[in-house]
Amino acid sequence: MMQLIDGKATSQTIKQEIADEVKHIIANGGKRPHLAAVLVGNDGGSESYVASKVKACEEVGFNSSLVRFNSDVTENELLACVQKLNVDSDIDGFIVQLPLPAHISEEKITEAIDPRKDVDGFHPVNLGKMILGMPCFISATPQGIMELLKRYNIETKGKHAVVIGRSNIVGRPMSILLSQKGVFADATVTVCHSRTANLKELCLEADIIVAALGKPKFLKADMVKQGTVIIDVGTTRVDAPDTKRGWQLIGDVDFENIAPKCSYITPVPGGVGPMTIISLLQNTLKAVKL
Amino acid sequence: MMQLIDGKATSQTIKQEIADEVKHIIANGGKRPHLAAVLVGNDGGSESYVASKVKACEEVGFNSSLVRFNSDVTENELLACVQKLNVDSDIDGFIVQLPLPAHISEEKITEAIDPRKDVDGFHPVNLGKMILGMPCFISATPQGIMELLKRYNIETKGKHAVVIGRSNIVGRPMSILLSQKGVFADATVTVCHSRTANLKELCLEADIIVAALGKPKFLKADMVKQGTVIIDVGTTRVDAPDTKRGWQLIGDVDFENIAPKCSYITPVPGGVGPMTIISLLQNTLKAVKL
Repeated sequence: MMQLIDGKATSQTIKQEIADEVKHIIANGGKRPHLAAVLVGNDGGSESYVASKVKACEEVGFNSSLVRFNSDVTENELLACVQKLNVDSDIDGFIVQLPLPAHISEEKITEAIDPRKDVDGFHPVNLGKMILGMPCFISATPQGIMELLKRYNIETKGKHAVVIGRSNIVGRPMSILLSQKGVFADATVTVCHSRTANLKELCLEADIIVAALGKPKFLKADMVKQGTVIIDVGTTRVDAPDTKRGWQLIGDVDFENIAPKCSYITPVPGGVGPMTIISLLQNTLKAVKL
Repeated sequence: MMQLIDGKATSQTIKQEIADEVKHIIANGGKRPHLAAVLVGNDGGSESYVASKVKACEEVGFNSSLVRFNSDVTENELLACVQKLNVDSDIDGFIVQLPLPAHISEEKITEAIDPRKDVDGFHPVNLGKMILGMPCFISATPQGIMELLKRYNIETKGKHAVVIGRSNIVGRPMSILLSQKGVFADATVTVCHSRTANLKELCLEADIIVAALGKPKFLKADMVKQGTVIIDVGTTRVDAPDTKRGWQLIGDVDFENIAPKCSYITPVPGGVGPMTIISLLQNTLKAVKL
Protein backbone atom coordinates (compact mmCIF):
# COMPACT_ATOMS: atom_id res chain seq x y z
CA MET A 1 0.00 0.00 0.00
CA MET A 2 1.36 3.36 -1.05
CA GLN A 3 1.45 5.96 1.69
CA LEU A 4 1.65 9.66 0.92
CA ILE A 5 4.17 11.61 3.00
CA ASP A 6 2.19 14.69 3.88
CA GLY A 7 4.75 17.43 4.43
CA LYS A 8 2.09 20.08 4.83
CA ALA A 9 0.33 18.29 7.69
CA THR A 10 3.65 17.35 9.30
CA SER A 11 4.85 20.93 9.11
CA GLN A 12 1.64 22.10 10.83
CA THR A 13 2.14 19.57 13.61
CA ILE A 14 5.73 20.66 14.18
CA LYS A 15 4.80 24.35 14.06
CA GLN A 16 2.36 23.67 16.88
CA GLU A 17 5.05 21.83 18.83
CA ILE A 18 7.44 24.75 18.39
CA ALA A 19 4.74 27.26 19.40
CA ASP A 20 4.11 25.22 22.55
CA GLU A 21 7.81 25.14 23.32
CA VAL A 22 8.07 28.92 22.90
CA LYS A 23 5.17 29.40 25.31
CA HIS A 24 6.94 27.12 27.75
CA ILE A 25 10.19 29.08 27.42
CA ILE A 26 8.43 32.41 27.98
CA ALA A 27 6.41 31.04 30.92
CA ASN A 28 9.71 30.06 32.52
CA GLY A 29 11.14 33.54 32.12
CA GLY A 30 13.21 32.66 29.06
CA LYS A 31 14.01 34.77 26.04
CA ARG A 32 11.71 34.88 23.02
CA PRO A 33 13.56 33.44 19.99
CA HIS A 34 14.48 36.08 17.43
CA LEU A 35 15.26 35.36 13.78
CA ALA A 36 16.53 38.08 11.46
CA ALA A 37 16.53 37.99 7.67
CA VAL A 38 18.63 40.14 5.37
CA LEU A 39 17.13 40.82 1.95
CA VAL A 40 19.04 42.54 -0.84
CA GLY A 41 17.18 43.98 -3.84
CA ASN A 42 13.62 43.10 -4.71
CA ASP A 43 13.66 39.82 -6.61
CA GLY A 44 10.11 38.42 -6.55
CA GLY A 45 11.14 34.92 -5.47
CA SER A 46 13.37 36.15 -2.64
CA GLU A 47 10.68 38.58 -1.47
CA SER A 48 8.10 35.84 -1.13
CA TYR A 49 10.51 33.37 0.52
CA VAL A 50 11.49 35.94 3.13
CA ALA A 51 7.86 36.98 3.65
CA SER A 52 6.85 33.38 4.36
CA LYS A 53 9.75 32.99 6.78
CA VAL A 54 8.67 36.11 8.69
CA LYS A 55 5.08 34.85 8.73
CA ALA A 56 6.15 31.45 10.08
CA CYS A 57 8.08 33.19 12.86
CA GLU A 58 4.96 35.05 13.90
CA GLU A 59 2.90 31.86 13.87
CA VAL A 60 5.17 30.14 16.38
CA GLY A 61 5.74 33.20 18.58
CA PHE A 62 9.29 34.11 17.48
CA ASN A 63 10.33 37.71 17.06
CA SER A 64 11.52 38.46 13.57
CA SER A 65 13.40 41.30 11.93
CA LEU A 66 13.84 42.12 8.29
CA VAL A 67 16.86 44.12 7.19
CA ARG A 68 16.53 45.42 3.63
CA PHE A 69 19.13 46.78 1.24
CA ASN A 70 18.90 48.10 -2.29
CA SER A 71 20.57 45.93 -4.88
CA ASP A 72 23.40 48.47 -5.18
CA VAL A 73 24.53 47.87 -1.58
CA THR A 74 28.30 47.37 -1.41
CA GLU A 75 29.89 44.18 -0.15
CA ASN A 76 31.42 46.12 2.75
CA GLU A 77 28.06 47.54 3.80
CA LEU A 78 26.59 44.04 3.78
CA LEU A 79 29.57 42.66 5.72
CA ALA A 80 29.09 45.43 8.30
CA CYS A 81 25.44 44.40 8.65
CA VAL A 82 26.45 40.75 9.15
CA GLN A 83 28.96 41.86 11.78
CA LYS A 84 26.28 43.84 13.60
CA LEU A 85 23.91 40.88 13.64
CA ASN A 86 26.74 38.62 14.80
CA VAL A 87 27.21 40.67 17.97
CA ASP A 88 23.57 41.63 18.59
CA SER A 89 22.73 39.55 21.64
CA ASP A 90 18.99 39.76 20.99
CA ILE A 91 19.32 38.05 17.59
CA ASP A 92 19.58 34.28 18.03
CA GLY A 93 20.00 33.43 14.38
CA PHE A 94 19.87 35.11 10.99
CA ILE A 95 19.91 34.39 7.31
CA VAL A 96 21.08 36.35 4.31
CA GLN A 97 18.65 35.46 1.54
CA LEU A 98 20.43 34.16 -1.56
CA PRO A 99 21.05 34.82 -4.41
CA LEU A 100 22.97 38.08 -3.91
CA PRO A 101 23.76 40.56 -6.69
CA ALA A 102 26.76 39.57 -8.83
CA HIS A 103 29.06 42.24 -7.35
CA ILE A 104 28.84 40.64 -3.89
CA SER A 105 30.65 37.40 -3.02
CA GLU A 106 28.12 34.97 -1.51
CA GLU A 107 31.05 32.95 -0.23
CA LYS A 108 32.51 35.93 1.63
CA ILE A 109 29.16 36.88 3.18
CA THR A 110 28.42 33.29 4.21
CA GLU A 111 31.84 32.92 5.82
CA ALA A 112 31.37 36.18 7.73
CA ILE A 113 28.29 34.88 9.55
CA ASP A 114 28.99 33.65 13.08
CA PRO A 115 28.53 29.86 12.74
CA ARG A 116 26.56 29.87 15.98
CA LYS A 117 23.94 32.10 14.34
CA ASP A 118 24.10 30.48 10.89
CA VAL A 119 20.61 28.93 10.98
CA ASP A 120 20.76 28.31 7.21
CA GLY A 121 23.68 25.94 7.87
CA PHE A 122 25.65 27.23 4.89
CA HIS A 123 28.87 28.16 6.75
CA PRO A 124 31.75 25.73 5.99
CA VAL A 125 32.14 25.06 9.70
CA ASN A 126 28.57 23.80 9.93
CA LEU A 127 29.07 21.53 6.90
CA GLY A 128 32.30 20.21 8.41
CA LYS A 129 30.66 19.54 11.76
CA MET A 130 27.86 17.69 9.97
CA ILE A 131 30.47 15.32 8.50
CA LEU A 132 31.99 14.84 11.94
CA GLY A 133 28.58 14.21 13.49
CA MET A 134 29.07 17.17 15.84
CA PRO A 135 26.23 19.47 16.95
CA CYS A 136 25.64 21.93 14.10
CA PHE A 137 23.05 23.63 11.93
CA ILE A 138 21.96 21.50 8.99
CA SER A 139 20.52 23.26 5.96
CA ALA A 140 16.77 23.44 5.54
CA THR A 141 15.96 20.88 2.85
CA PRO A 142 18.09 17.94 4.04
CA GLN A 143 17.01 18.50 7.62
CA GLY A 144 13.36 18.65 6.53
CA ILE A 145 13.72 15.34 4.67
CA MET A 146 15.39 13.66 7.66
CA GLU A 147 12.52 14.91 9.83
CA LEU A 148 9.94 13.40 7.45
CA LEU A 149 11.75 10.03 7.53
CA LYS A 150 11.62 10.12 11.34
CA ARG A 151 8.00 11.22 11.58
CA TYR A 152 6.90 8.49 9.17
CA ASN A 153 9.19 5.99 10.89
CA ILE A 154 10.78 4.95 7.60
CA GLU A 155 13.50 2.34 8.03
CA THR A 156 16.80 3.37 6.42
CA LYS A 157 19.34 1.10 8.17
CA GLY A 158 21.06 -1.13 5.63
CA LYS A 159 18.76 0.10 2.85
CA HIS A 160 20.21 1.21 -0.45
CA ALA A 161 19.50 4.90 -0.99
CA VAL A 162 20.18 6.55 -4.33
CA VAL A 163 20.58 10.33 -4.18
CA ILE A 164 20.25 11.98 -7.59
CA GLY A 165 22.05 15.31 -7.46
CA ARG A 166 25.20 16.45 -5.68
CA SER A 167 24.43 20.09 -4.85
CA ASN A 168 25.95 21.62 -1.73
CA ILE A 169 22.57 22.38 -0.22
CA VAL A 170 20.60 19.20 -0.97
CA GLY A 171 22.22 16.19 -2.65
CA ARG A 172 25.58 16.28 -0.89
CA PRO A 173 24.29 16.74 2.66
CA MET A 174 21.53 14.14 2.07
CA SER A 175 24.08 11.56 1.00
CA ILE A 176 26.16 12.26 4.10
CA LEU A 177 23.26 12.26 6.55
CA LEU A 178 21.71 9.05 5.20
CA SER A 179 25.01 7.17 5.33
CA GLN A 180 26.02 8.27 8.82
CA LYS A 181 25.77 6.08 11.88
CA GLY A 182 22.47 6.33 13.69
CA VAL A 183 18.74 5.72 13.66
CA PHE A 184 17.08 6.92 10.44
CA ALA A 185 20.53 6.80 8.85
CA ASP A 186 22.98 3.86 8.36
CA ALA A 187 21.89 3.51 4.72
CA THR A 188 24.18 2.41 1.90
CA VAL A 189 24.17 5.54 -0.24
CA THR A 190 24.95 6.03 -3.92
CA VAL A 191 25.52 9.59 -5.14
CA CYS A 192 24.38 10.02 -8.76
CA HIS A 193 24.69 13.07 -10.99
CA SER A 194 24.93 14.27 -14.56
CA ARG A 195 27.97 12.07 -15.25
CA THR A 196 26.40 8.86 -13.96
CA ALA A 197 26.42 6.23 -16.69
CA ASN A 198 23.80 3.73 -15.53
CA LEU A 199 21.28 5.74 -13.55
CA LYS A 200 18.30 3.59 -14.45
CA GLU A 201 19.98 0.38 -13.25
CA LEU A 202 21.05 2.05 -10.00
CA CYS A 203 17.57 3.44 -9.36
CA LEU A 204 16.05 0.01 -9.98
CA GLU A 205 18.23 -1.34 -7.14
CA ALA A 206 17.28 1.45 -4.75
CA ASP A 207 15.09 1.05 -1.68
CA ILE A 208 15.03 4.82 -1.26
CA ILE A 209 15.42 7.47 -3.98
CA VAL A 210 16.02 11.14 -3.28
CA ALA A 211 15.46 13.05 -6.53
CA ALA A 212 17.14 16.44 -6.33
CA LEU A 213 18.28 17.34 -9.81
CA GLY A 214 15.71 19.94 -10.81
CA LYS A 215 14.35 18.30 -13.98
CA PRO A 216 10.56 18.08 -14.07
CA LYS A 217 9.21 14.50 -14.10
CA PHE A 218 12.71 13.10 -14.68
CA LEU A 219 12.21 9.93 -12.63
CA LYS A 220 9.85 7.58 -14.51
CA ALA A 221 7.95 4.52 -13.35
CA ASP A 222 10.22 2.13 -15.26
CA MET A 223 13.19 3.38 -13.20
CA VAL A 224 11.90 2.22 -9.79
CA LYS A 225 11.14 -1.14 -8.30
CA GLN A 226 8.01 -2.04 -6.36
CA GLY A 227 7.95 -0.70 -2.80
CA THR A 228 10.54 2.08 -3.15
CA VAL A 229 10.48 5.15 -0.90
CA ILE A 230 10.53 8.27 -3.09
CA ILE A 231 11.56 11.72 -1.85
CA ASP A 232 10.94 14.38 -4.49
CA VAL A 233 12.97 17.55 -3.92
CA GLY A 234 12.28 19.09 -7.33
CA THR A 235 10.33 22.35 -7.52
CA THR A 236 10.43 23.66 -11.05
CA ARG A 237 7.96 26.37 -12.02
CA VAL A 238 6.23 25.35 -15.22
CA ASP A 239 3.78 27.51 -17.20
CA ALA A 240 0.20 26.52 -16.56
CA PRO A 241 -2.11 28.95 -18.39
CA ASP A 242 -5.22 27.31 -16.93
CA THR A 243 -4.26 28.10 -13.35
CA LYS A 244 -4.93 31.36 -11.54
CA ARG A 245 -1.21 32.06 -11.01
CA GLY A 246 -0.26 31.02 -14.52
CA TRP A 247 2.28 28.45 -13.29
CA GLN A 248 2.54 25.35 -11.19
CA LEU A 249 5.31 23.55 -9.30
CA ILE A 250 6.47 20.31 -10.89
CA GLY A 251 8.68 17.84 -9.04
CA ASP A 252 11.52 15.67 -10.37
CA VAL A 253 9.27 12.61 -10.20
CA ASP A 254 6.55 11.44 -12.58
CA PHE A 255 4.25 11.20 -9.57
CA GLU A 256 1.10 9.87 -11.25
CA ASN A 257 2.81 6.83 -12.72
CA ILE A 258 5.32 6.17 -9.95
CA ALA A 259 3.07 6.58 -6.92
CA PRO A 260 1.27 3.23 -7.35
CA LYS A 261 4.62 1.39 -7.16
CA CYS A 262 5.90 3.15 -4.02
CA SER A 263 5.72 2.32 -0.35
CA TYR A 264 6.06 6.04 0.49
CA ILE A 265 6.19 9.12 -1.69
CA THR A 266 6.32 12.89 -1.17
CA PRO A 267 4.04 14.94 -3.44
CA VAL A 268 4.97 18.27 -5.05
CA PRO A 269 3.73 20.63 -3.77
CA GLY A 270 3.03 19.68 -0.16
CA GLY A 271 5.90 17.24 0.43
CA VAL A 272 9.43 18.39 1.15
CA GLY A 273 8.67 22.08 0.47
CA PRO A 274 6.68 22.94 3.62
CA MET A 275 9.38 21.29 5.75
CA THR A 276 12.13 23.73 4.79
CA ILE A 277 10.73 26.61 6.82
CA ILE A 278 10.23 24.20 9.71
CA SER A 279 13.97 23.43 9.63
CA LEU A 280 14.72 27.14 9.86
CA LEU A 281 12.44 27.49 12.89
CA GLN A 282 13.99 24.40 14.50
CA ASN A 283 17.48 25.77 13.90
CA THR A 284 16.54 29.11 15.45
CA LEU A 285 15.20 27.33 18.51
CA LYS A 286 18.44 25.36 18.67
CA ALA A 287 20.41 28.61 18.46
CA VAL A 288 18.49 29.97 21.45
CA LYS A 289 19.55 26.97 23.49
CA LEU A 290 23.22 27.27 22.53
CA MET B 1 47.01 -6.39 -18.00
CA MET B 2 47.20 -5.65 -14.31
CA GLN B 3 49.28 -2.62 -13.40
CA LEU B 4 50.70 -2.13 -9.93
CA ILE B 5 50.25 1.35 -8.49
CA ASP B 6 53.66 1.97 -6.97
CA GLY B 7 53.09 4.44 -4.16
CA LYS B 8 56.67 4.20 -3.00
CA ALA B 9 58.13 5.21 -6.37
CA THR B 10 55.48 7.91 -6.85
CA SER B 11 56.20 9.34 -3.42
CA GLN B 12 59.92 9.51 -4.27
CA THR B 13 59.15 11.35 -7.50
CA ILE B 14 56.94 13.88 -5.72
CA LYS B 15 59.47 14.34 -2.91
CA GLN B 16 62.03 15.29 -5.56
CA GLU B 17 59.55 17.73 -7.14
CA ILE B 18 58.90 19.34 -3.75
CA ALA B 19 62.63 19.54 -3.00
CA ASP B 20 63.15 21.28 -6.35
CA GLU B 21 60.36 23.73 -5.60
CA VAL B 22 61.85 24.54 -2.20
CA LYS B 23 65.22 25.24 -3.85
CA HIS B 24 63.44 27.50 -6.30
CA ILE B 25 61.65 29.36 -3.49
CA ILE B 26 64.89 29.88 -1.55
CA ALA B 27 66.76 30.95 -4.69
CA ASN B 28 64.11 33.63 -5.18
CA GLY B 29 64.54 34.95 -1.67
CA GLY B 30 61.46 33.18 -0.31
CA LYS B 31 60.91 31.65 3.08
CA ARG B 32 61.86 28.07 3.85
CA PRO B 33 58.69 26.06 4.63
CA HIS B 34 58.45 25.11 8.29
CA LEU B 35 56.29 22.29 9.64
CA ALA B 36 55.86 21.75 13.36
CA ALA B 37 54.62 18.60 15.05
CA VAL B 38 53.25 18.32 18.56
CA LEU B 39 53.72 14.95 20.24
CA VAL B 40 52.14 14.04 23.56
CA GLY B 41 53.42 11.06 25.58
CA ASN B 42 55.58 8.34 24.10
CA ASP B 43 53.35 5.89 22.29
CA GLY B 44 55.55 3.83 19.98
CA GLY B 45 53.35 4.25 16.92
CA SER B 46 53.04 8.01 17.31
CA GLU B 47 56.79 8.34 17.93
CA SER B 48 57.63 6.59 14.68
CA TYR B 49 54.99 8.47 12.64
CA VAL B 50 56.27 11.80 13.86
CA ALA B 51 59.90 10.74 13.32
CA SER B 52 59.17 9.84 9.71
CA LYS B 53 57.40 13.17 9.18
CA VAL B 54 60.40 15.06 10.52
CA LYS B 55 62.71 12.98 8.32
CA ALA B 56 60.59 13.70 5.23
CA CYS B 57 60.77 17.43 5.99
CA GLU B 58 64.55 17.25 6.05
CA GLU B 59 64.65 15.35 2.78
CA VAL B 60 62.75 18.06 0.90
CA GLY B 61 64.47 21.00 2.60
CA PHE B 62 61.72 22.08 5.01
CA ASN B 63 62.48 23.24 8.49
CA SER B 64 60.78 21.14 11.12
CA SER B 65 60.14 21.50 14.83
CA LEU B 66 59.04 18.93 17.32
CA VAL B 67 57.23 20.05 20.46
CA ARG B 68 57.00 17.30 23.09
CA PHE B 69 54.80 16.99 26.15
CA ASN B 70 54.54 14.31 28.79
CA SER B 71 51.29 12.39 28.74
CA ASP B 72 50.14 14.24 31.87
CA VAL B 73 50.06 17.61 30.06
CA THR B 74 46.82 19.45 30.76
CA GLU B 75 44.33 20.39 28.04
CA ASN B 76 44.97 24.05 28.79
CA GLU B 77 48.73 23.67 28.41
CA LEU B 78 48.20 21.97 25.05
CA LEU B 79 45.71 24.67 23.97
CA ALA B 80 48.27 27.31 24.90
CA CYS B 81 50.84 25.54 22.72
CA VAL B 82 48.40 25.44 19.79
CA GLN B 83 47.74 29.14 20.29
CA LYS B 84 51.45 29.88 20.25
CA LEU B 85 51.94 27.94 17.02
CA ASN B 86 48.90 29.66 15.49
CA VAL B 87 50.53 33.08 15.89
CA ASP B 88 54.14 32.07 15.24
CA SER B 89 54.76 33.60 11.82
CA ASP B 90 57.71 31.30 11.11
CA ILE B 91 55.52 28.18 11.39
CA ASP B 92 53.60 27.62 8.15
CA GLY B 93 51.68 24.58 9.28
CA PHE B 94 51.56 22.18 12.18
CA ILE B 95 50.00 18.96 13.32
CA VAL B 96 49.07 17.59 16.71
CA GLN B 97 49.73 13.87 16.48
CA LEU B 98 46.66 11.81 17.42
CA PRO B 99 45.57 9.95 19.47
CA LEU B 100 45.80 12.19 22.55
CA PRO B 101 45.49 10.96 26.16
CA ALA B 102 41.90 10.39 27.28
CA HIS B 103 41.80 13.47 29.53
CA ILE B 104 42.28 15.79 26.54
CA SER B 105 39.50 16.49 24.03
CA GLU B 106 40.83 15.85 20.51
CA GLU B 107 37.86 17.78 19.17
CA LYS B 108 38.72 20.86 21.23
CA ILE B 109 42.40 20.76 20.24
CA THR B 110 41.57 20.26 16.56
CA GLU B 111 39.12 23.16 16.57
CA ALA B 112 41.70 25.39 18.25
CA ILE B 113 44.14 25.04 15.34
CA ASP B 114 44.09 27.97 12.91
CA PRO B 115 42.49 26.41 9.79
CA ARG B 116 45.14 28.12 7.65
CA LYS B 117 47.84 26.11 9.45
CA ASP B 118 45.81 22.89 9.75
CA VAL B 119 47.91 20.83 7.33
CA ASP B 120 46.30 17.61 8.62
CA GLY B 121 42.98 18.93 7.27
CA PHE B 122 41.06 17.79 10.36
CA HIS B 123 39.49 21.15 11.28
CA PRO B 124 35.72 21.26 10.54
CA VAL B 125 36.25 24.34 8.37
CA ASN B 126 38.60 22.43 6.09
CA LEU B 127 36.14 19.55 5.78
CA GLY B 128 33.34 22.01 5.01
CA LYS B 129 35.40 23.78 2.38
CA MET B 130 36.22 20.44 0.79
CA ILE B 131 32.47 19.82 0.35
CA LEU B 132 32.09 23.27 -1.16
CA GLY B 133 35.04 22.72 -3.50
CA MET B 134 36.83 25.72 -1.98
CA PRO B 135 40.62 25.88 -1.49
CA CYS B 136 41.39 23.93 1.69
CA PHE B 137 43.64 21.34 3.26
CA ILE B 138 42.55 17.78 2.53
CA SER B 139 43.62 15.07 4.93
CA ALA B 140 46.61 12.93 4.08
CA THR B 141 45.18 9.59 2.97
CA PRO B 142 42.38 10.81 0.66
CA GLN B 143 44.68 13.39 -0.89
CA GLY B 144 47.36 10.75 -1.41
CA ILE B 145 44.87 8.46 -3.16
CA MET B 146 43.63 11.28 -5.42
CA GLU B 147 47.26 12.00 -6.30
CA LEU B 148 47.85 8.36 -7.26
CA LEU B 149 44.76 8.37 -9.50
CA LYS B 150 46.13 11.48 -11.24
CA ARG B 151 49.69 10.22 -11.59
CA TYR B 152 48.47 6.93 -13.07
CA ASN B 153 45.93 8.76 -15.23
CA ILE B 154 43.09 6.53 -14.05
CA GLU B 155 39.73 7.50 -15.54
CA THR B 156 37.06 8.08 -12.90
CA LYS B 157 34.44 10.13 -14.77
CA GLY B 158 31.14 8.26 -14.90
CA LYS B 159 32.73 5.19 -13.31
CA HIS B 160 31.07 3.46 -10.39
CA ALA B 161 33.27 3.73 -7.32
CA VAL B 162 32.46 1.75 -4.19
CA VAL B 163 34.05 3.12 -1.01
CA ILE B 164 34.04 0.60 1.84
CA GLY B 165 34.24 2.51 5.10
CA ARG B 166 32.82 5.86 6.22
CA SER B 167 35.50 7.17 8.59
CA ASN B 168 35.98 10.91 8.89
CA ILE B 169 39.58 10.71 7.75
CA VAL B 170 39.39 8.26 4.84
CA GLY B 171 36.07 6.82 3.64
CA ARG B 172 33.93 9.94 3.96
CA PRO B 173 36.34 12.36 2.28
CA MET B 174 37.12 9.81 -0.47
CA SER B 175 33.43 9.46 -1.30
CA ILE B 176 33.07 13.24 -1.51
CA LEU B 177 36.22 13.83 -3.56
CA LEU B 178 35.47 11.06 -6.08
CA SER B 179 31.91 12.27 -6.65
CA GLN B 180 32.72 15.95 -7.05
CA LYS B 181 32.83 17.74 -10.36
CA GLY B 182 36.20 17.69 -12.06
CA VAL B 183 38.92 15.68 -13.72
CA PHE B 184 39.84 12.54 -11.74
CA ALA B 185 36.48 12.88 -10.02
CA ASP B 186 32.90 12.85 -11.44
CA ALA B 187 32.46 9.22 -10.38
CA THR B 188 29.17 7.70 -9.25
CA VAL B 189 30.02 6.81 -5.66
CA THR B 190 28.48 4.28 -3.30
CA VAL B 191 29.37 4.55 0.39
CA CYS B 192 29.36 1.12 2.08
CA HIS B 193 29.88 0.27 5.74
CA SER B 194 29.16 -2.23 8.48
CA ARG B 195 25.39 -1.91 7.94
CA THR B 196 25.52 -2.52 4.19
CA ALA B 197 23.34 -5.48 3.30
CA ASN B 198 24.61 -6.51 -0.15
CA LEU B 199 28.26 -5.55 -0.19
CA LYS B 200 29.35 -8.35 -2.50
CA GLU B 201 26.78 -7.43 -5.18
CA LEU B 202 27.77 -3.76 -4.98
CA CYS B 203 31.49 -4.55 -5.22
CA LEU B 204 30.83 -6.77 -8.25
CA GLU B 205 29.30 -3.74 -9.99
CA ALA B 206 32.19 -1.45 -9.11
CA ASP B 207 34.75 -0.10 -11.57
CA ILE B 208 36.79 1.27 -8.67
CA ILE B 209 36.90 -0.05 -5.10
CA VAL B 210 38.44 1.85 -2.19
CA ALA B 211 38.79 -0.58 0.72
CA ALA B 212 39.14 1.36 3.95
CA LEU B 213 37.57 -0.71 6.69
CA GLY B 214 40.63 -2.06 8.49
CA LYS B 215 39.92 -5.79 8.18
CA PRO B 216 42.88 -7.79 6.84
CA LYS B 217 42.19 -9.47 3.46
CA PHE B 218 38.48 -8.64 3.71
CA LEU B 219 38.00 -8.08 -0.03
CA LYS B 220 38.16 -11.43 -1.84
CA ALA B 221 38.56 -12.26 -5.51
CA ASP B 222 34.94 -13.39 -5.88
CA MET B 223 33.79 -9.88 -4.87
CA VAL B 224 35.34 -8.03 -7.82
CA LYS B 225 34.78 -8.12 -11.54
CA GLN B 226 37.50 -8.30 -14.17
CA GLY B 227 39.32 -5.00 -14.73
CA THR B 228 38.48 -3.26 -11.47
CA VAL B 229 40.74 -0.57 -10.00
CA ILE B 230 41.55 -1.48 -6.38
CA ILE B 231 42.79 1.00 -3.78
CA ASP B 232 43.75 -0.73 -0.56
CA VAL B 233 43.84 1.62 2.44
CA GLY B 234 44.08 -1.10 5.09
CA THR B 235 47.20 -1.31 7.25
CA THR B 236 46.67 -3.80 10.01
CA ARG B 237 49.69 -5.08 11.91
CA VAL B 238 49.59 -8.84 12.01
CA ASP B 239 51.99 -11.07 13.94
CA ALA B 240 54.63 -12.60 11.71
CA PRO B 241 57.11 -14.55 13.84
CA ASP B 242 59.30 -15.34 10.82
CA THR B 243 60.05 -11.70 10.10
CA LYS B 244 62.76 -9.63 11.73
CA ARG B 245 60.25 -7.17 13.24
CA GLY B 246 57.86 -9.91 14.30
CA TRP B 247 54.92 -8.34 12.44
CA GLN B 248 53.84 -7.31 8.96
CA LEU B 249 51.31 -4.91 7.48
CA ILE B 250 48.29 -6.56 5.91
CA GLY B 251 45.86 -4.64 3.71
CA ASP B 252 42.07 -4.95 3.44
CA VAL B 253 42.45 -6.75 0.12
CA ASP B 254 43.34 -10.38 -0.59
CA PHE B 255 46.04 -9.10 -2.93
CA GLU B 256 47.40 -12.39 -4.24
CA ASN B 257 44.08 -13.62 -5.53
CA ILE B 258 42.57 -10.28 -6.58
CA ALA B 259 45.56 -8.77 -8.37
CA PRO B 260 45.24 -10.95 -11.50
CA LYS B 261 41.67 -9.64 -12.04
CA CYS B 262 42.49 -5.94 -11.64
CA SER B 263 43.39 -3.23 -14.09
CA TYR B 264 45.22 -1.34 -11.33
CA ILE B 265 45.91 -2.21 -7.70
CA THR B 266 47.82 -0.68 -4.80
CA PRO B 267 49.97 -3.08 -2.78
CA VAL B 268 50.33 -3.05 1.02
CA PRO B 269 52.89 -1.93 1.99
CA GLY B 270 54.14 0.44 -0.71
CA GLY B 271 50.82 1.66 -2.10
CA VAL B 272 48.72 4.31 -0.34
CA GLY B 273 50.91 4.40 2.77
CA PRO B 274 53.95 6.26 1.40
CA MET B 275 51.63 8.88 -0.12
CA THR B 276 50.30 10.12 3.21
CA ILE B 277 53.50 11.91 4.21
CA ILE B 278 53.62 13.38 0.71
CA SER B 279 50.19 14.94 1.30
CA LEU B 280 51.47 16.51 4.49
CA LEU B 281 54.45 18.00 2.65
CA GLN B 282 52.17 19.23 -0.16
CA ASN B 283 49.83 20.84 2.36
CA THR B 284 52.72 22.57 4.10
CA LEU B 285 53.90 23.94 0.78
CA LYS B 286 50.35 25.14 0.11
CA ALA B 287 50.28 26.82 3.52
CA VAL B 288 53.45 28.74 2.64
CA LYS B 289 51.76 30.11 -0.45
CA LEU B 290 48.61 31.21 1.43
